[in-house]
This record gives sequence, structure tokens and C-alpha cells, in this order.
Amino acid sequence: MAFDLHAAIGKLAGFNDERAGTGVTREVYTPTYRRAIAWVADRMREAGLEPRFDAVGNLLGRWPGTDPDAPVVMTGSHVDTTLDAGRFDGVAGVLGAVAAVHRLRAEGVALRRGIEVVSFAGEEPRFGTGCVGSRAMAGGLGRADLDRLTDRDGVSMAAALTDAGFDPGALGEARLDPARVHAFVELHIEQGAVLETTGDDVGVVTAIAAPHDLRLTLRGRAAHAGATPMALRRDALAGAAEILVELERLARASPSGTTVGTVGVLRVEPGAVNVVPGRAELEVDVRDSDLEAREATVRALLDAAIAIGAHRGLEVEVAEMVRDDPVRCAPHVVEAVAAAAAELGVAAREMTSGAYHDAMVLGAAGVPVGMVFVPSRGGVSHHPDEHTDPDELDTGVAVLAGALRRLAA
Amino acid sequence: MAFDLHAAIGKLAGFNDERAGTGVTREVYTPTYRRAIAWVADRMREAGLEPRFDAVGNLLGRWPGTDPDAPVVMTGSHVDTTLDAGRFDGVAGVLGAVAAVHRLRAEGVALRRGIEVVSFAGEEPRFGTGCVGSRAMAGGLGRADLDRLTDRDGVSMAAALTDAGFDPGALGEARLDPARVHAFVELHIEQGAVLETTGDDVGVVTAIAAPHDLRLTLRGRAAHAGATPMALRRDALAGAAEILVELERLARASPSGTTVGTVGVLRVEPGAVNVVPGRAELEVDVRDSDLEAREATVRALLDAAIAIGAHRGLEVEVAEMVRDDPVRCAPHVVEAVAAAAAELGVAAREMTSGAYHDAMVLGAAGVPVGMVFVPSRGGVSHHPDEHTDPDELDTGVAVLAGALRRLAA
Repeated sequence: MAFDLHAAIGKLAGFNDERAGTGVTREVYTPTYRRAIAWVADRMREAGLEPRFDAVGNLLGRWPGTDPDAPVVMTGSHVDTTLDAGRFDGVAGVLGAVAAVHRLRAEGVALRRGIEVVSFAGEEPRFGTGCVGSRAMAGGLGRADLDRLTDRDGVSMAAALTDAGFDPGALGEARLDPARVHAFVELHIEQGAVLETTGDDVGVVTAIAAPHDLRLTLRGRAAHAGATPMALRRDALAGAAEILVELERLARASPSGTTVGTVGVLRVEPGAVNVVPGRAELEVDVRDSDLEAREATVRALLDAAIAIGAHRGLEVEVAEMVRDDPVRCAPHVVEAVAAAAAELGVAAREMTSGAYHDAMVLGAAGVPVGMVFVPSRGGVSHHPDEHTDPDELDTGVAVLAGALRRLAA
Repeated sequence: MAFDLHAAIGKLAGFNDERAGTGVTREVYTPTYRRAIAWVADRMREAGLEPRFDAVGNLLGRWPGTDPDAPVVMTGSHVDTTLDAGRFDGVAGVLGAVAAVHRLRAEGVALRRGIEVVSFAGEEPRFGTGCVGSRAMAGGLGRADLDRLTDRDGVSMAAALTDAGFDPGALGEARLDPARVHAFVELHIEQGAVLETTGDDVGVVTAIAAPHDLRLTLRGRAAHAGATPMALRRDALAGAAEILVELERLARASPSGTTVGTVGVLRVEPGAVNVVPGRAELEVDVRDSDLEAREATVRALLDAAIAIGAHRGLEVEVAEMVRDDPVRCAPHVVEAVAAAAAELGVAAREMTSGAYHDAMVLGAAGVPVGMVFVPSRGGVSHHPDEHTDPDELDTGVAVLAGALRRLAA
């Protein structure tokens, strides 16, 4: 049966909780997401995979191998999005995996190992922490975490799971035995501009950077914006601004050259034009594939935040949201991807991933992982303009199929 | 009839749309505000005033004088609040005016001029602009402004007025003829710490600082927080932070010594921890009783914002929200307040108001204005901890009553 990958990507983009922007908003466990993932399950079924959901809503579709005892080869990504996002992040790796299965079936190969296509639940951080689906598989989430993790409206992951028809008490059943997995390969858009700059067709990922995310809460004193002289203020937002400027400086000065630091969320209270803010909350994301450089940046930032707070009379509270270790990809997976690219005559480049992925979470749990990157136009991602040309994506799917054939042989 | 001012202030604080904090939230035209203002109208009726609402919901209560042709003496303030605010800002001047009328009636004086107690609608900037009630009286609002001015939920002032039972088309009927007003005196909490520091009982206000408020919208490019190197970012929030730090520096360095600069509202989009912000919106408030120093600060800030935007690849859009001229109080009103304080043996201090008030708006329209300040504990305002001791407020009411008696004689 023919599978039109590009039409499928367009169709999936239609499952969209539209916001002010022009992009796609499809957060995990929402009604729109549930309709989207049911549609993906139908695509798995068409590809001869047997779809099933695990206890946290990860969707898995199995193509059995000739040796039922052999550890399987997994591939896939996610179909949830951030707010007002693009149509390729994650989706390329799920529908691309379905396309790769169609391609291998068309080749008529009989594979020794089973192939399992997966669409992970909640790679994007609706609940503050990303990769909740793969974390559950990796055993990195406890029942208490499901109550602790909440979204911007205060909805807990446990409540969202229940609402979506899953049982938070069954969390443990989602756990995966790493010994049952020979390899996990994830096809993904680069989300940066390296391939576009070098002109290579695909990236062969050798390491995945990981985030250290913190929530900083600054408490000063709300005061009248007209009647409070500058010298008497304890302005929480001004303190937050100074911390952000310092974060940028520290990331740029980091010796690894690959550290990035971002404040993507900043909440201000009480939030009126004539009131000096008494409270500000920042969500800080620091990443690097170099763990030492990343942690040095985080430590320097916290030192700066404490000094800025002391100077301004602000209480500074620090809460850790996420702290993952960067992952090295498994040599046999990297080699399979590189060999598949070479066989196809495709220009491939070894690189690290600045973004984290479900592959990072499985890799940290002992699963041998690797990734295939395809170019992102302008390096844009998490934005409506996110784009990868159809033939660039087709090349990525061909490399993924070749890698799966090698790994499952 | 006895009027217990302090019990009345406590009662009014019970009309409260409670938020997360412990303070009072009562924004103009909301159902809670409407119940509160109806309760205030009942207090006016008890004081022998004849309450009526004008076309925008300003509440006026008249005590006729012996000469019906003589221009009247007005006094009052407002009973709407910012978010999670205190119980004295504005309220002290409305219920204090009612208390002053009770006091004058108890003295048995017959006044030549009518006394008009007013509770202005919307002194706090629910719709981005403050003093909408007094602006309507001063002829400073047009019908189109009622559609243009919107609150944080996008509700226009016209829609809020209609919902509260007023007719936006009747706006012109709220207009006041300045020639019909001999004086307007406003009793208000200081909202700063000058009186607490000097130990004076009341402040005799000689000038009122005025705000210049701007909305700055920065547009960069939303991008993946992991995959976008620092050098390739167009981070709108980082630009906003740099602008805020510069605003603080400029206000502190202003030669007048009285310039203040605040960012009380900062909105970030898309607002996810793993996305470099593509858009940030700041609401900037710059104030001074020295117009030249204020405008020099605003110009320097805009120059800095444009330079920061250019350096970072951000579009910078500037919209003016409010731009008022500082007001000098009328000599005969200042003298009446000072004489009333002297007669009572109260320690009085001439001072300027850093905050704006409805008196500023009427003053700019040609009404002779003055103000009486009472101490604010710790200089705190727009905060649940806002406080003025009962006897301090009683002193302010006595001074107000004395000033009204002089002005209305």
C-alpha cells in the first residue's frame, strides 16, 4: 500500500488547537492530541504494524521479526507540539518511521529482529518536564511525579492521564527492559542550521546535549510605581531582567562554545502598569553536550542570582525542574546510520544534537541509541516557519530504513 | 447621624474579587465594583448628599449651598483598585469626604457654595489608561477611545460600560464645565514614605507628577532553546530585559532626582521553557513632577530600545498609552489646606505627589485643584500591606473638612 509521507504530515498538522499565531498547537493528552494519535495508530495499522498504547499513552506498533527471542529495533519520535509550533518536530520521526516500514516491506526483506515503531507521549514539556512518555518507559517517573508535574493551568499529569482514559496507578507497566532493545534510532529535524550551512544531506548524531532547567522565583515588594523612589524599590522583575542578561553573558562566555541558556517563561505579579512587581518567576534552560561546561554555567548563574537578590533585597528561591545527563550514541547504531547513508551515496556529517530528544532519555537508561537528522530551513523550529523540503525528508527516511535493515538483520 | 469611617473602610474592603493574594481586587465596572459603589451611594444618602451617576459611572453626591449660582467645591477620589491591592488607596478620599461632610453638618455651618462629593470611575488603569472617569469629566476621552481602550482580557471600556448599564454614546454628558468648580480637594494616602520619615501629620500637595506610559513590542524569532546557538538568536525577551535594566539606570541618573521608571507588565510569547521567545511586550511607566526630566528619560529609553533592537535583530514597535502633564496646584486651594492644618495645630508639610490622581486630570483641564496627604506606613501602596493609622486618617479628614469650610464660605 502506498504511503504519502508529505500528505500525511499535512494531514496531521490539521489536528490543531489553534492559538493567536499561525502554527500548530497540539499538547499531549488534550482531546486534539487524542484524535491525532488515534489517526497515527490507523497509519500504523495500514503499515501492518499492530498498534497498542502503554500505560502512559505511548503508542507502539510492532512488526514481528523471524526470531521472536531477539531484542528488537525501535524507531520513532513524538507527535505532541509546543505552543504555536511547526509541523515537523517529532512528526517527521513518527510518520518517517511508518514510511520506512512501508519501504522495507516493499523491498520484501525478512528481518530477524522485530521492528517497533513508537510515538512517545509528551516529549514537549507541557508539564514543565519534557519526554514524560520515554521517561516512564525508562523507569524515570514515579507515581508521585504524576501529581507533582503540572501544566500552566495547574492540571497535573495524573489528572491529564486520567482524563485521557489512562490509569496513573498503572505507570509501572509502561516500563521497558533495556535488555529487550538492540537499538533505538530516531529520525528528527535538526532544529538548527548546521546541515543547511555545510550542505550535508543528513546528520549522524554521535551525542545528545541535555538540559538543566530551573525555576527561579524572586520575591520583592509590590509598590506604587509613582510614589516609590528608585532607591526604595525591591523590584522583582528588574532583578529577573538582570539575571537574564547575566545568563546570556555566561552562556556566550562558556569555554565549551556549545552552551546555550534561555529564559522562555517569565511571569510577573501583580502585573499592572502602575505597580512595581513584587514577584517574578523565571524558567531557565541551560544545555550542552559538555556536562562540565553546562554545570559550571548553572553554578555561576545561581551565584549571580543570589548576589543580585541580596543587592536588591529580593528573596530568591530555586527549584530544579529537569536535570539530565548528555548521552553518547551507541557505536553500532552510529555505524548503521553512517553505513546506510554511504550505501545511498548521501552526504552525511557526524554531529551532536543541541536539542534533547526521547533518544536521550532511553540512552541514559541503557538503551543503545542513535539519531538521523534532516535539515531545518533557517535552523527554525518550535515556530510556524519550521520547514524541511520533501526530498530532504525522503532522503532521511531512506537512511533510516537502511539503518533499520542493518540493525534488524 | 454618626459615621464610623474606619468601620466603613473595613466594610468596603469586603467587596473583593479575591485573587491568589490576601489583598483587595475591585476593578471598575465589575459586578463587585458595582455592588461596592451602590453601597457608597447609600453612605452618601445617609450624609444628606443626593447621589447620582453620570454617563461613565462617576458617582456624585451634592450638598447644596446657600448660593445656587456660586461655583461648587468638589472633593473625593475613587474606590476601584489595582490587583491584590490595599484598602486605603482612593477609598480614604471618598469615605473621608463623606466623613468630612458629617463633621461639617455636626458643626452646624451653612455654606455659601455647594459641596459635591465624587467617587471617580476607574482611577486605576484597568484599560491601560488610568483616571478614565475624571478624564471623561475633563473632556479628555472621545467615543473612539472607549473602543480603543481594552483590559487584559481584551474587553473594551465601551463594552464594560454597557455591561454596567451605561450608554457609551452618552459620554459627552459626563463633561464638567471647569468654570462651575471653585476648587477640587482630594484626600489621599501618600503612597510613599516622606511623611513617615519627616514625622509630619499631613502633606499639603503643591504639584502632582504625571506619567508617560509606553507599550514596547519586541519581535524577534521563536526558536528551539537547545538547537539554536547563542549567536543565531533573536531573543525578544532578552532584548526586553536589557531595556528594563537600561530604564532603571536612566531613571536613577535623571538630573531631577525624582524621576521613576517601572516595567509593571511583561508578556512573553510563545512562553515555553524550551523555546527562545519570539515576542515580548513591555508596559513602561516613567513619571516626574519635572516634565523636562521625564521626557528626557523617555527619549533616552527609546533611543536605547532602538539600539538594542538593532543590535539583536528585533523589531521594536512603540505605542503611547498615556502622556499627561504634571500639574501645579491652585494657590487658593493650597492655602485653604495649609490654613486648615494650622488652625488644628497639625504638622503639615508642602510636598509633591509622585503618584498621579484624578486631581491631576481635573487640574490639567483648568479646575483649581489641591490635595491632602496622610501617611502610608512603610510607604507601601498597591499592596495588601497598605496601611494608615485611624488617628492619622482622622487628622486628614479634619484638615479636609477645614479646607472645605474655607473654600465653600
